[in-house]
Amino acid sequence: MKNSISEINITKAKNHKTSFDFLAENLTNKGVDVENIIAKLAEFQCAIPSWALGAGGTRFGRFSIGGEPGSLEDKINDVGTIHSLTGCAGAISLHIPWDIPKDVAAIQQLAVANGLIFDAVNSNTFQDQKDQPFSYKYGSLSSIHKDSRDLAIQHNMEVVKIGEQLGSKSITVWLADGSNFPGQVNFRKALQHTADSLKSIYSSMPSDWSMFIEYKPYEPNFYHTVIQDWGTSFMLANECGDRAYTLVDLGHHLPNTNIEYIVSTLMSKGKLGGFHFNDSKYGDDDLTVGSIKPYQLFLIFNELVYGMKNDLQNPSPAWMIDASHNIKDPLEDLIQSLEAILLAYAQALVLDHDQLESARENSDVVLAQELLQDVFRTDLRPLIAEVRKRKNAAIHPIDAYRQLAIRQQLTGQRGTNTIATGL
Amino acid sequence: MKNSISEINITKAKNHKTSFDFLAENLTNKGVDVENIIAKLAEFQCAIPSWALGAGGTRFGRFSIGGEPGSLEDKINDVGTIHSLTGCAGAISLHIPWDIPKDVAAIQQLAVANGLIFDAVNSNTFQDQKDQPFSYKYGSLSSIHKDSRDLAIQHNMEVVKIGEQLGSKSITVWLADGSNFPGQVNFRKALQHTADSLKSIYSSMPSDWSMFIEYKPYEPNFYHTVIQDWGTSFMLANECGDRAYTLVDLGHHLPNTNIEYIVSTLMSKGKLGGFHFNDSKYGDDDLTVGSIKPYQLFLIFNELVYGMKNDLQNPSPAWMIDASHNIKDPLEDLIQSLEAILLAYAQALVLDHDQLESARENSDVVLAQELLQDVFRTDLRPLIAEVRKRKNAAIHPIDAYRQLAIRQQLTGQRGTNTIATGL
Amino acid sequence: MKNSISEINITKAKNHKTSFDFLAENLTNKGVDVENIIAKLAEFQCAIPSWALGAGGTRFGRFSIGGEPGSLEDKINDVGTIHSLTGCAGAISLHIPWDIPKDVAAIQQLAVANGLIFDAVNSNTFQDQKDQPFSYKYGSLSSIHKDSRDLAIQHNMEVVKIGEQLGSKSITVWLADGSNFPGQVNFRKALQHTADSLKSIYSSMPSDWSMFIEYKPYEPNFYHTVIQDWGTSFMLANECGDRAYTLVDLGHHLPNTNIEYIVSTLMSKGKLGGFHFNDSKYGDDDLTVGSIKPYQLFLIFNELVYGMKNDLQNPSPAWMIDASHNIKDPLEDLIQSLEAILLAYAQALVLDHDQLESARENSDVVLAQELLQDVFRTDLRPLIAEVRKRKNAAIHPIDAYRQLAIRQQLTGQRGTNTIATGL
Amino acid sequence: MKNSISEINITKAKNHKTSFDFLAENLTNKGVDVENIIAKLAEFQCAIPSWALGAGGTRFGRFSIGGEPGSLEDKINDVGTIHSLTGCAGAISLHIPWDIPKDVAAIQQLAVANGLIFDAVNSNTFQDQKDQPFSYKYGSLSSIHKDSRDLAIQHNMEVVKIGEQLGSKSITVWLADGSNFPGQVNFRKALQHTADSLKSIYSSMPSDWSMFIEYKPYEPNFYHTVIQDWGTSFMLANECGDRAYTLVDLGHHLPNTNIEYIVSTLMSKGKLGGFHFNDSKYGDDDLTVGSIKPYQLFLIFNELVYGMKNDLQNPSPAWMIDASHNIKDPLEDLIQSLEAILLAYAQALVLDHDQLESARENSDVVLAQELLQDVFRTDLRPLIAEVRKRKNAAIHPIDAYRQLAIRQQLTGQRGTNTIATGL
Repeated sequence: MKNSISEINITKAKNHKTSFDFLAENLTNKGVDVENIIAKLAEFQCAIPSWALGAGGTRFGRFSIGGEPGSLEDKINDVGTIHSLTGCAGAISLHIPWDIPKDVAAIQQLAVANGLIFDAVNSNTFQDQKDQPFSYKYGSLSSIHKDSRDLAIQHNMEVVKIGEQLGSKSITVWLADGSNFPGQVNFRKALQHTADSLKSIYSSMPSDWSMFIEYKPYEPNFYHTVIQDWGTSFMLANECGDRAYTLVDLGHHLPNTNIEYIVSTLMSKGKLGGFHFNDSKYGDDDLTVGSIKPYQLFLIFNELVYGMKNDLQNPSPAWMIDASHNIKDPLEDLIQSLEAILLAYAQALVLDHDQLESARENSDVVLAQELLQDVFRTDLRPLIAEVRKRKNAAIHPIDAYRQLAIRQQLTGQRGTNTIATGL
Repeated sequence: MKNSISEINITKAKNHKTSFDFLAENLTNKGVDVENIIAKLAEFQCAIPSWALGAGGTRFGRFSIGGEPGSLEDKINDVGTIHSLTGCAGAISLHIPWDIPKDVAAIQQLAVANGLIFDAVNSNTFQDQKDQPFSYKYGSLSSIHKDSRDLAIQHNMEVVKIGEQLGSKSITVWLADGSNFPGQVNFRKALQHTADSLKSIYSSMPSDWSMFIEYKPYEPNFYHTVIQDWGTSFMLANECGDRAYTLVDLGHHLPNTNIEYIVSTLMSKGKLGGFHFNDSKYGDDDLTVGSIKPYQLFLIFNELVYGMKNDLQNPSPAWMIDASHNIKDPLEDLIQSLEAILLAYAQALVLDHDQLESARENSDVVLAQELLQDVFRTDLRPLIAEVRKRKNAAIHPIDAYRQLAIRQQLTGQRGTNTIATGL
Repeated sequence: MKNSISEINITKAKNHKTSFDFLAENLTNKGVDVENIIAKLAEFQCAIPSWALGAGGTRFGRFSIGGEPGSLEDKINDVGTIHSLTGCAGAISLHIPWDIPKDVAAIQQLAVANGLIFDAVNSNTFQDQKDQPFSYKYGSLSSIHKDSRDLAIQHNMEVVKIGEQLGSKSITVWLADGSNFPGQVNFRKALQHTADSLKSIYSSMPSDWSMFIEYKPYEPNFYHTVIQDWGTSFMLANECGDRAYTLVDLGHHLPNTNIEYIVSTLMSKGKLGGFHFNDSKYGDDDLTVGSIKPYQLFLIFNELVYGMKNDLQNPSPAWMIDASHNIKDPLEDLIQSLEAILLAYAQALVLDHDQLESARENSDVVLAQELLQDVFRTDLRPLIAEVRKRKNAAIHPIDAYRQLAIRQQLTGQRGTNTIATGL
Repeated sequence: MKNSISEINITKAKNHKTSFDFLAENLTNKGVDVENIIAKLAEFQCAIPSWALGAGGTRFGRFSIGGEPGSLEDKINDVGTIHSLTGCAGAISLHIPWDIPKDVAAIQQLAVANGLIFDAVNSNTFQDQKDQPFSYKYGSLSSIHKDSRDLAIQHNMEVVKIGEQLGSKSITVWLADGSNFPGQVNFRKALQHTADSLKSIYSSMPSDWSMFIEYKPYEPNFYHTVIQDWGTSFMLANECGDRAYTLVDLGHHLPNTNIEYIVSTLMSKGKLGGFHFNDSKYGDDDLTVGSIKPYQLFLIFNELVYGMKNDLQNPSPAWMIDASHNIKDPLEDLIQSLEAILLAYAQALVLDHDQLESARENSDVVLAQELLQDVFRTDLRPLIAEVRKRKNAAIHPIDAYRQLAIRQQLTGQRGTNTIATGL
């Protein structure tokens, strides 16, 4: 594939060079160290979750597409394809039990061949598996029923073990537990059980593992969620220990939440562990990153970049795209998401934080806004394309994907009726 | 079943009588015509949709229960059970293609035996059926593709025909069409196609049929919905004609919407055709009626009752419960919903509108609030129980349902693994 | 006034007795200890803020009423009036600099004469006072400018001193600081400055004082608020020390927030210090308590009552009504709020928590809901009236207020054009 | 001032030329007719409201700035300054009674000297004026009290007369009427009174005048607003007649509303009369245009541009900025808003609608998104700067404003304590 990409790149090289040179000169004139930014962009790698490679759906239905991956191997290959095209999708995030590898060595080899590592593993206690002895219908880690709690704890420990075999170093716990009706659960007991369950899992993890605790205000429960917001997650992470962190998913907030400030607060306390990208207009819509609120994404990246530089107590966050591809080709959708992420990252890197601090010290609100908008309005796409070009990834990945007719090939190989495991 | 209910009622009769007599005396002293209100409550009948009798689910999963109905016959029997217990669920609302009757006469007979009529029929163009020639993936009545539009129009016409055979007099069109991403569809064309499609269906209906046009701001589309709000539905209904109406579903509104005012406006223009009950905290959560915002329900019923008396241009709305039973026994859940509906209706009937108008004319805001709260805080449950008692329905339906061990019987008959067709 | 109230009560005594006896018998039959509940209700005292006794307004204007209080003395007398009528408003909460007493002893004497104590004092750094040396335009405790920070810290310390003179034991810090535009402030620095400023104030307080840290997501800043949510407040309170607590104001939440769960979490951690009552449909609307979402209020009281019994680490929260009276007579409005508060409290006290726990242990969601709704639907107003009657407060306070023509008297004494200091 | 601007422009000319030439060449290569777009941008004129030239405030306070305008003359001069700098603010929108001209001819002359026309006039029935015979406290055009209604109708008619003298051709009615509490008003009567009042005003207008009916969901009323949404405004406009239109204010929507679709629907029905620009994160925050959601602004302009070309039944909308400048220099704030508006307009003009339609016809969702994002990510600022340069306005207006020390001059002339009339 790399050869095909290079050939396509040749047809785009001249135009790209003109754009890049113009941009690089302008940025350099403004005092921006272009090569330094290119180096940082080149380092950035974002995980793709295994469950996002097939068509997603809603409670009202699902429209499948051709060539969906039917196995873990297929999923790894699909992420490999994205990585070849974009150069920044060098990790896959597995979901257990959907992705239990049968032959660990073979799977590892396949990942290596695709240039991928295994990022955080994800447990699943929001569904009952066939013949499961105790149900999660009324909760798992938070359940009033000890049997269900223990089962869920056990499951999370097994997820860690599978992750260990593959080289993962972290587990993401998204706890769907909560209640649909006032009165249904005792809030305090559910929270206490959750804290205890998380501590059990935490203490069983290898000493070089981290735990990411995700929060979400509602869905699939529609009255109360045990870990409803960053405050609850942060509190639980503190109770667990140093290697427990909060995970922010962009879609998991009430209307109008200032997410960038949450990011800032968590990083300043050294507690932002993971980050799930997507976009939304209403709720957890799981749309393509940057398709609805690109300026918010930029503002968030401003805080991330500031934190990566200044909040030394905070580890480098684990990045992942967590979107649902209900009507687009999932691979194209993910490529669009990666473009939006890289662009926001580039914007935040180009922002002159010293000038910004100076404006703030003068309470020059107008200038502070001008500085942000100047960066956001500058077309930085040539920077990202340059990074890809240097990596032999595609200058324009969507074009390349289409020219290479990848979906048609996948459909030919896998058929039109395969259904991806998972959501 | 009626005998068993009567026997159970006997055990509750004395307590009920004490409560009812006390309430009736108090109300009478306030000038309320108790028997008149009882008569109105007794007339009230609310349809149960065929798809609400099994366990519901979310995009993340579904937890089934025992004894779910596996056929249209089962569904009719379940509604019959609810009707026997509550006396106010004397209608069923079918969903096509999930509920196409094979033997119309037998189905009608079964409905009669259960004391049920067939209320509005519902079409489905939000899913593709197996081997469907053209997909609804990118829209149905609004589609840019004439083939998909025509198919959807044809389907709606067939739904009307099936409804005609059963004695229905109206069709509810919930159009899930919209888009997930900015740019995806041309808003104007989609709206125009929708108007044209609805007009085609409308003009093909029998002359004594009505069309109810539902609106919803989002889900399953997450950027734009063609019929996003009451204004759009109202506009389309006006374009269709006199027998086209807006249908209000309580869960289909943006956060903080004043729904009671929408109800008022529609009735005053003679355009409120149907009403779907449920409750929600976040979005279209489809929770039990009255479980989250009972005061809002009362405020809505105030407008409904006022309109039924004063807005003579408006037909009597078609009532239906449209909830999803993800963790409760669906029959118990529906019984709780009916209780909440009847209670809010009773409250609105007891409210002294003359006194209220007088307070309003004096701009006595405090008194207006006192009048509403006085009614809402008064315990009117004995009124509803009295209505049921007189109909030989259960004084306390949930208790009776449990004493009669209905779920256990259904599970015994139908097994634990039946899955209801539909959502 | 007490004599006049007693006379009015006589005319209502018979009806009240009938209602109360009926209710008390019913509750007793259900196993409720009526006298115990009456005792708890009788103990409940809610503070009235000094700024809520005149007409409120919006940024678009203000409609004044006759007889507004023009001095601290007037305000104390107005609260005294409410307390005489309701028996549960035995505290006033002052706002500095609006309410600086000139003659402390006289003010104390007046408070005692009215049966009032001085509850939490409130500082104000959201406005500049005339000739203030440094502005709060760009922030106070969080400001990038040390001069503004120091001034704000100093002001808070003075508020504590004034409070000490009057017998207050706590200070409420509502920090309006934040920003209106992305880029305007450095989130981390503003948060750190806030933490440091709060610690300075905290450490200067007498050792028997508590600090309540309020949170609010937006307004008067419309992009970011430094203490935006309970998580931030909780974090800051933990950083300050044992006697720093979070204060919950019902109107300070994003749309659809599950407030009752926040209350539960804070109490279980011993960190719920104060509670501001009001109601809202859209934002911080500051409407009469219980006028929009009475069921939510009940659910919140369930958690409060549970916590007061079980969360022994949590102090008894400081209760206050924080509403704005834009179109109602403020005294009538406050009386309506007190009624709603007492009613919700009574409902939560009557709820059988053992039965509820049992339902939860059986995952009987339907029964749990039934238990809550049963209490909420029961008319408990006679309990509250009985409490008032025993205290020689008014059986029906609004009626008494009107019969006594209090507003007319106040207008006669104070004129029609007095404007209350404050908002 | 024009000379000073030209001098400053000289210093920026070279850089601008390089940027513009590069952009123009790129656009031309893509088939964009650059001169045509420049011509359209040059025609665009946006009104500035007279009340937005001083510091705004919230209900919690207001921080004034130096040099605020103290008279209508000052306001006209301020708009003239903005127009000189930007070339696109050639209109002022007056608010009555705040801006009643004493000497009409002199005011007209001053406007002409500043290159300004008088756009839509605005009535005010949300405040009581001193010695007003009947209050608007409980409503104006919707009031249950005929005296208040008549007064409000009369006031609107007078506003039209004042507008006529100045050459305005339209009146904007923002009706703040509504209610704060359930029960307060009879929805139907308030709506009917509003319809009747609007019809009275409408029928009294000169035959070449238009009426713009604004909608808003809440504030200053917090339970119900008579004209709560576009549907209500559209219905009322239809009832009034052909020259009555809906006015969209970006901040007047419930959370998550798809505003661009509302714009599209209104234009397709020929009923979008006016447009008020601002931005917001929470409610009607009245922030600088484009400061929070610039992509949404672009999506809205896509519909506006499409409509201006295709919806020939719709008049050219009256544009106005309706923001509040709480912490920024109002003139700088307005300049930033104009920049954001022009940029979004330019983006929408550059978008290739034929390509977009083609993508839509193929249901190529990915391509449709790419087309939109490509335009949005392209830096089109040189186009706007070029338009200004050709008009002898400032290439970079904020820089010029600061270099010319305009605020300092205004403060010198007008002092530091002038308070603008109005909000």
